[in-house]
Amino acid sequence: MLSRLRRLTNSIPAYRVPTLVDSKSRKAKHRDKLDKPPGTLTMPTDTREKEAVSIQWFRFNDSEVSERCDDFTIAEVRNGVGNNYTTWLNIHGLTDVKLIEEIGDQFGLDKLVLEDLLELDQRPKVEEYENYLFFTLKSIRLKSDDTVLVEQMSFVLGNGFVISFQEKTADIFEHIRVRLRTSKALIRSRHEDYLLYVMLDSIVDHYIILSEDLEDRMEELQAVVTKNPGEISLVEIEELKSIFIKLKRSIWPVRDAVGFLDKGGSGRIKANVSMFYHDLYDLIQTVIESIESNRQIMDGLTNIYLSSLSNKMNETMKILTVISAIFIPLTFIVGVYGMNFRYMPELEYNSGYFIVWGIMVLIAFSLILFFKKRGWFD
Amino acid sequence: MLSRLRRLTNSIPAYRVPTLVDSKSRKAKHRDKLDKPPGTLTMPTDTREKEAVSIQWFRFNDSEVSERCDDFTIAEVRNGVGNNYTTWLNIHGLTDVKLIEEIGDQFGLDKLVLEDLLELDQRPKVEEYENYLFFTLKSIRLKSDDTVLVEQMSFVLGNGFVISFQEKTADIFEHIRVRLRTSKALIRSRHEDYLLYVMLDSIVDHYIILSEDLEDRMEELQAVVTKNPGEISLVEIEELKSIFIKLKRSIWPVRDAVGFLDKGGSGRIKANVSMFYHDLYDLIQTVIESIESNRQIMDGLTNIYLSSLSNKMNETMKILTVISAIFIPLTFIVGVYGMNFRYMPELEYNSGYFIVWGIMVLIAFSLILFFKKRGWFD
Amino acid sequence: MLSRLRRLTNSIPAYRVPTLVDSKSRKAKHRDKLDKPPGTLTMPTDTREKEAVSIQWFRFNDSEVSERCDDFTIAEVRNGVGNNYTTWLNIHGLTDVKLIEEIGDQFGLDKLVLEDLLELDQRPKVEEYENYLFFTLKSIRLKSDDTVLVEQMSFVLGNGFVISFQEKTADIFEHIRVRLRTSKALIRSRHEDYLLYVMLDSIVDHYIILSEDLEDRMEELQAVVTKNPGEISLVEIEELKSIFIKLKRSIWPVRDAVGFLDKGGSGRIKANVSMFYHDLYDLIQTVIESIESNRQIMDGLTNIYLSSLSNKMNETMKILTVISAIFIPLTFIVGVYGMNFRYMPELEYNSGYFIVWGIMVLIAFSLILFFKKRGWFD
Amino acid sequence: MLSRLRRLTNSIPAYRVPTLVDSKSRKAKHRDKLDKPPGTLTMPTDTREKEAVSIQWFRFNDSEVSERCDDFTIAEVRNGVGNNYTTWLNIHGLTDVKLIEEIGDQFGLDKLVLEDLLELDQRPKVEEYENYLFFTLKSIRLKSDDTVLVEQMSFVLGNGFVISFQEKTADIFEHIRVRLRTSKALIRSRHEDYLLYVMLDSIVDHYIILSEDLEDRMEELQAVVTKNPGEISLVEIEELKSIFIKLKRSIWPVRDAVGFLDKGGSGRIKANVSMFYHDLYDLIQTVIESIESNRQIMDGLTNIYLSSLSNKMNETMKILTVISAIFIPLTFIVGVYGMNFRYMPELEYNSGYFIVWGIMVLIAFSLILFFKKRGWFD
Amino acid sequence: MLSRLRRLTNSIPAYRVPTLVDSKSRKAKHRDKLDKPPGTLTMPTDTREKEAVSIQWFRFNDSEVSERCDDFTIAEVRNGVGNNYTTWLNIHGLTDVKLIEEIGDQFGLDKLVLEDLLELDQRPKVEEYENYLFFTLKSIRLKSDDTVLVEQMSFVLGNGFVISFQEKTADIFEHIRVRLRTSKALIRSRHEDYLLYVMLDSIVDHYIILSEDLEDRMEELQAVVTKNPGEISLVEIEELKSIFIKLKRSIWPVRDAVGFLDKGGSGRIKANVSMFYHDLYDLIQTVIESIESNRQIMDGLTNIYLSSLSNKMNETMKILTVISAIFIPLTFIVGVYGMNFRYMPELEYNSGYFIVWGIMVLIAFSLILFFKKRGWFD
Repeated sequence: MLSRLRRLTNSIPAYRVPTLVDSKSRKAKHRDKLDKPPGTLTMPTDTREKEAVSIQWFRFNDSEVSERCDDFTIAEVRNGVGNNYTTWLNIHGLTDVKLIEEIGDQFGLDKLVLEDLLELDQRPKVEEYENYLFFTLKSIRLKSDDTVLVEQMSFVLGNGFVISFQEKTADIFEHIRVRLRTSKALIRSRHEDYLLYVMLDSIVDHYIILSEDLEDRMEELQAVVTKNPGEISLVEIEELKSIFIKLKRSIWPVRDAVGFLDKGGSGRIKANVSMFYHDLYDLIQTVIESIESNRQIMDGLTNIYLSSLSNKMNETMKILTVISAIFIPLTFIVGVYGMNFRYMPELEYNSGYFIVWGIMVLIAFSLILFFKKRGWFD
Repeated sequence: MLSRLRRLTNSIPAYRVPTLVDSKSRKAKHRDKLDKPPGTLTMPTDTREKEAVSIQWFRFNDSEVSERCDDFTIAEVRNGVGNNYTTWLNIHGLTDVKLIEEIGDQFGLDKLVLEDLLELDQRPKVEEYENYLFFTLKSIRLKSDDTVLVEQMSFVLGNGFVISFQEKTADIFEHIRVRLRTSKALIRSRHEDYLLYVMLDSIVDHYIILSEDLEDRMEELQAVVTKNPGEISLVEIEELKSIFIKLKRSIWPVRDAVGFLDKGGSGRIKANVSMFYHDLYDLIQTVIESIESNRQIMDGLTNIYLSSLSNKMNETMKILTVISAIFIPLTFIVGVYGMNFRYMPELEYNSGYFIVWGIMVLIAFSLILFFKKRGWFD
Repeated sequence: MLSRLRRLTNSIPAYRVPTLVDSKSRKAKHRDKLDKPPGTLTMPTDTREKEAVSIQWFRFNDSEVSERCDDFTIAEVRNGVGNNYTTWLNIHGLTDVKLIEEIGDQFGLDKLVLEDLLELDQRPKVEEYENYLFFTLKSIRLKSDDTVLVEQMSFVLGNGFVISFQEKTADIFEHIRVRLRTSKALIRSRHEDYLLYVMLDSIVDHYIILSEDLEDRMEELQAVVTKNPGEISLVEIEELKSIFIKLKRSIWPVRDAVGFLDKGGSGRIKANVSMFYHDLYDLIQTVIESIESNRQIMDGLTNIYLSSLSNKMNETMKILTVISAIFIPLTFIVGVYGMNFRYMPELEYNSGYFIVWGIMVLIAFSLILFFKKRGWFD
Repeated sequence: MLSRLRRLTNSIPAYRVPTLVDSKSRKAKHRDKLDKPPGTLTMPTDTREKEAVSIQWFRFNDSEVSERCDDFTIAEVRNGVGNNYTTWLNIHGLTDVKLIEEIGDQFGLDKLVLEDLLELDQRPKVEEYENYLFFTLKSIRLKSDDTVLVEQMSFVLGNGFVISFQEKTADIFEHIRVRLRTSKALIRSRHEDYLLYVMLDSIVDHYIILSEDLEDRMEELQAVVTKNPGEISLVEIEELKSIFIKLKRSIWPVRDAVGFLDKGGSGRIKANVSMFYHDLYDLIQTVIESIESNRQIMDGLTNIYLSSLSNKMNETMKILTVISAIFIPLTFIVGVYGMNFRYMPELEYNSGYFIVWGIMVLIAFSLILFFKKRGWFD
Repeated sequence: MLSRLRRLTNSIPAYRVPTLVDSKSRKAKHRDKLDKPPGTLTMPTDTREKEAVSIQWFRFNDSEVSERCDDFTIAEVRNGVGNNYTTWLNIHGLTDVKLIEEIGDQFGLDKLVLEDLLELDQRPKVEEYENYLFFTLKSIRLKSDDTVLVEQMSFVLGNGFVISFQEKTADIFEHIRVRLRTSKALIRSRHEDYLLYVMLDSIVDHYIILSEDLEDRMEELQAVVTKNPGEISLVEIEELKSIFIKLKRSIWPVRDAVGFLDKGGSGRIKANVSMFYHDLYDLIQTVIESIESNRQIMDGLTNIYLSSLSNKMNETMKILTVISAIFIPLTFIVGVYGMNFRYMPELEYNSGYFIVWGIMVLIAFSLILFFKKRGWFD
């Protein structure tokens, strides 16, 4: 149990990433931004590892699918939109500002949208433009090494196309690609609104996995705190609590944005797909409620921990009290017979010494009995 | 009292089931699901005991009732719908995916509905389709052995029929069957909307029983904490509190779903039945409010428990203080007369020893009086 | 003060009644109910004392009033409705199911209404039927012996009549009867909607009295906790807090129901009477707000109590510390001169013993001064 | 600082007045009221000091102003309404029920309005009648002697007139009179809706003064608690917190009532005056928010106080521990050489005594160093 | 780390400024204001340093820009409004009441607006007048020396012009001026509604910087509290918490005001600019949510701190207990052999003394082992 716990507490700090950028650079960025007009595109300062940019193009309908990677121009993509085909353009990595601008030009995207795409500290939101919907949110995933990956994801949903922007090259949509290649997949017979749903669904599924992993950790903490509160510190409990608080803060606005799509998204989501979005809304709601009630349960852990501290102190006190209560009176007695009075009759008896021992043993036993009766030795 | 309590605290863990699946399998399931398109039917991985599937078919109106069990085809049921008859198809056990698919085909149910049916971790919800309403919720029941049974229940309400899906073979609807067989029962003269109400009413009644049982447990804890806080640990209090929190989380969405039916359920609930649903809504509201206020009262128990810890420590301290305060000064006095100074006049008096004893008894009595006056011996 | 307090804490348990039935019978009743169809009338199992049923009939208008008691048939009452008269039928005691059924028949009341009438665990609510309004709530009264009486009250408001159902024979409406007999009373010149208002107003007035009595008790507790926290236990504070919580839960739904009437009650409340209902709504709102803010103030009492525990422990510790700090060093000193070294020069001085005493008195005084300066003897 | 604080804590109880009547009389009054029909006028039982009734009559427009005091009949006032004049009738003292009734007759006020006027425990509210608006609220003022004056104020706003009722003869509107006498004052060129605004504005200004005074007191408490937590008791902190809670409860409904006027007050507030009411609404909102956030900050004070208690106890413990830790081992050593064994080689050495002293000094110093290193003497 | 912390805690008091005026002057001001009619202009009593007044005038469109400073009359500005130019009049310092009045006259501003401009304790709000919108809010900025500057800012948005009023001469809008001088800046091709947005955006950016700086401080506190709780006092934690509370209170009303503009601001914000305001609204929402969740996380810090106090006390107790537990029994033993009984056989043995030493060492070691096993020396 303990080793599992050790792993747990070691990996918890990884969760603290969600606030994303370290504060120094954040402040710097902000001070920086103040000098630029809104609408100026800058490369995200945070893509620390300068991931390579990669771009995939899917064009499919019921009967056909074409898939290309990095070997085409944006203009080609633009021209391929429509004609009963659904176009999916997926961009990995946001470091090529030129490419982003070209996409913006070809698809007629607003400058603000491009800026939001590149702003990695963006609040999740959906925005309605004349010719497209813009949706941005955070993907928060538990990686296989138990650390957490936070990634900005943006989507542009237009007539006949979806463009998805991913901050990092990761495989979150791989299963969608697999399905697209299969001719009989449901996804092939549906359109861009369903494709967007499938991608959002993947992201939300990861929220659930994360929230359930946190619930597991909470239950481990609960088990440890209940059985052996000494093995854990309040810091771990409060840290997990603050992760719940931060996670809720991150997911909350996603719910509102999906709710907008659920209500029709100004006509871009067709009636037969809208119930999928409703399902998605329900899922997010469930995640939020479970996070909130887990946070409340954590308050109970804090109480248990604090009461365990009191109990521990009481234990310490009991040891002190038992030892003091037994030996202090005895020490007094032997002190009495260490006095040097000329006339102390007891000292003269031959058996005096043994009688005193007897009395002392009696006193000690009485006291031990007294404490045993009060249940101090349980 | 104590033995009752012991039983109580032993059975509490059973309440923790509501989160349903153990976390390992949950995570596995989710990772698994990520690779499948939405709409793929899989057998619930959680029906651990692979309960046998059983299926009952009721067809009744004012004057006639027919009842069959396991010896018919779904097509027969489908053909029997309508003609002034109300059809009730009840399925026990969700392990036969083929059967579920057949029902889906015959009654024209959406793939998503079938998927939701089989998904045992579903949030309670009502969904409106063109030809039917889909209602899913959790039945949470206190069994006769004081453990809790959590079961997914789903209902499809169409024109002239109700299909009910139960996860486990249990007798929760037995009393409805008994009534259906009686020709004069109100239920016979009404239709599918009333039949659904009667089933939901049974489920909600069990919520009430459970909530009242928890309230009883709370009052037991309250009694014990008030009279003898030492006999209970904070863990039990916080565990009960977290059960209240989880139960509220489970019942909350049921209220919203029933509220939708109360407001007419898009015409599927007739006006003369809708007030029954209104009543149901009120009942659930009462349960939720009582859970919430009980949770608040539990906070008081935590306070009482923590204050009892402080009191206990104070008791320990008082014992230590009384013994130390009495014997430390006396030990000093006997130490004085244990000194080896050449000239110590008191040592020479014959009665010196007895005078010192007298003084010491006096001091001891004064101190005891002092502590008695402060009420330390109450 | 104390004797008043003793009375207070003795009578508090009486407040716990609001949850009404003792839990055993509650559970039994519920299990019982599961086997009956909704709409089956059963005698309330809780009217422990089987109070006699009594029935009064008032028929009045501006100029005339007739009053009869127990010596008439329901059919007579029914026939007397209308013709410019207002009819008030008042039933005491709900044990005569036959009578209730007859009233239901004569006045065309729904089965559900009759069931709700007899169900003593009913949530307060107002329900609108085609020919009448049904209003049910709890009267919570402080009796003259400082215990609390909880009683289910129901009203049926139709064209030209009000029927009131009281669980117990009590005098809560006596002052209304007195006024009805007076020809010049405002109540005589108004109609059934005003009569209902007057009755609800009496019930709400008792809420206020109760809430103010609780506020008085809170202030007494506050006074005691502030001056002598030892005389009270946290249990009393938390118990009062839980009474506030329960009372709020009981009154909350009454507000919503009266709010419905305030907004016109679907035309049954005339415009010139509706402002009385608005007043009533305001009154209930005031009660709820005062309960809520008192509950918050109670949290302060808990804090004061807990801090008083800490203070008490600190007092205990100080006594122990003062005594130990003074005598332990002195005991060391006398120990030194109790050593048996062959060569200890001080022992040889004639005045050695007295010098040591001097030094010890000096040390003791310095320490006492030290503690006095730190304010430990205040 | 301390003397200021003493004043503060002495004057705090004066704040507890807001609940107004002492509870005995309150209960009596209520029991009393139960026997009277709604609409019976009774003299407020609470105007303890039977203040004299005084009545002022202002009649003004742009060019003229007349002012009379106590020497006119209500009928004269009524006749003077209109004709391009604004009439302001101000009544001090509510003990002359006859006068109130005459005003009611002359201005056609509803019985309920008159009752509300005289009921000193009224919730703030605005009520719309056919020919006038009725507004009642509490004026809560900090008097120059730092006690708080709570006063019921009511206003009737009709076509061309405002009637104001004050419970006590106080000078809260004196500055308005001064301005009315000045011909160029804005108030002269406006009408009754602006006059009402000016009066409400005065009352709300006093809320702000009071709320800021409380904030000052909070900051004083904060300063004391931060620097010398021992000088204050938790009772003072919790008492101030409960004042915040009660004040918020008193002001809350005023906001809603003013909000109603802000939204036009059913046409009685003209468009060019309505923005003043909007301002008023904003002011009250600010007061409420500041009270609420101050209450939250107070929770921090409670935490600081409680932690200071823990710190104090720790200090006490440290003193005990340092003294015990140093002298208990030394006492053991001297005890060793007080033993009477026949053969104890150390005793025979001439320098034995001094060597033991050396060892003991060494031990004492090591222990002092040990505690110094742990920072116990800071 | 510590030195950084020291700086932190030293600079925190600077944050307490937000309540702005010191309480004495505040009260005086208010008492003062009571004697003046609303609408009387007075110089802000709080501009302590009587900053010089400075006034800039920008007039620009796509192709042209003119910029003048302090060398023009308000009438000139007024005449320059319109004709396809956007006018920006910026006033630094609010001490020249004459100037403010002249602007009011020239631009037809309401008296109330001018009063609000000069009132430095104004709640943020937006107000709609016939010919212009009035917007007032607080700029809260972190200065380079880590203190906080709170400044009242007001804006008047009319047809073709924006007037901005700043309390202090600061460079918050300098980057806007720089951009205006550049012909190709987006701001040049847009109008007054966009100009207002750009200014509000600067102010909100500073909110974010401040909120992130506070989050950094929180994380520092968290780090210190987690590793070495003794180095920090609860006062610092609670002070930061109260800053979060006050900041939220300050920003909250700004959100509502911007929300009004987002919804079109009664037609003054054109459709193509409104999405910028929507963005602004989102930003403020993010700030508020992050403040709120940080405040919740701070509660965890309080818990950790309080538990660290308990741990510290437990440590103190352990030291006392270990020393007492070891030496008290030993002192008893040596006391035994200090007794003066005539017949004590052990004393006669030559090796008695050494045997006793052996026993004592054994006892000491056993006790040390006992405490080591319980983990007291970790």
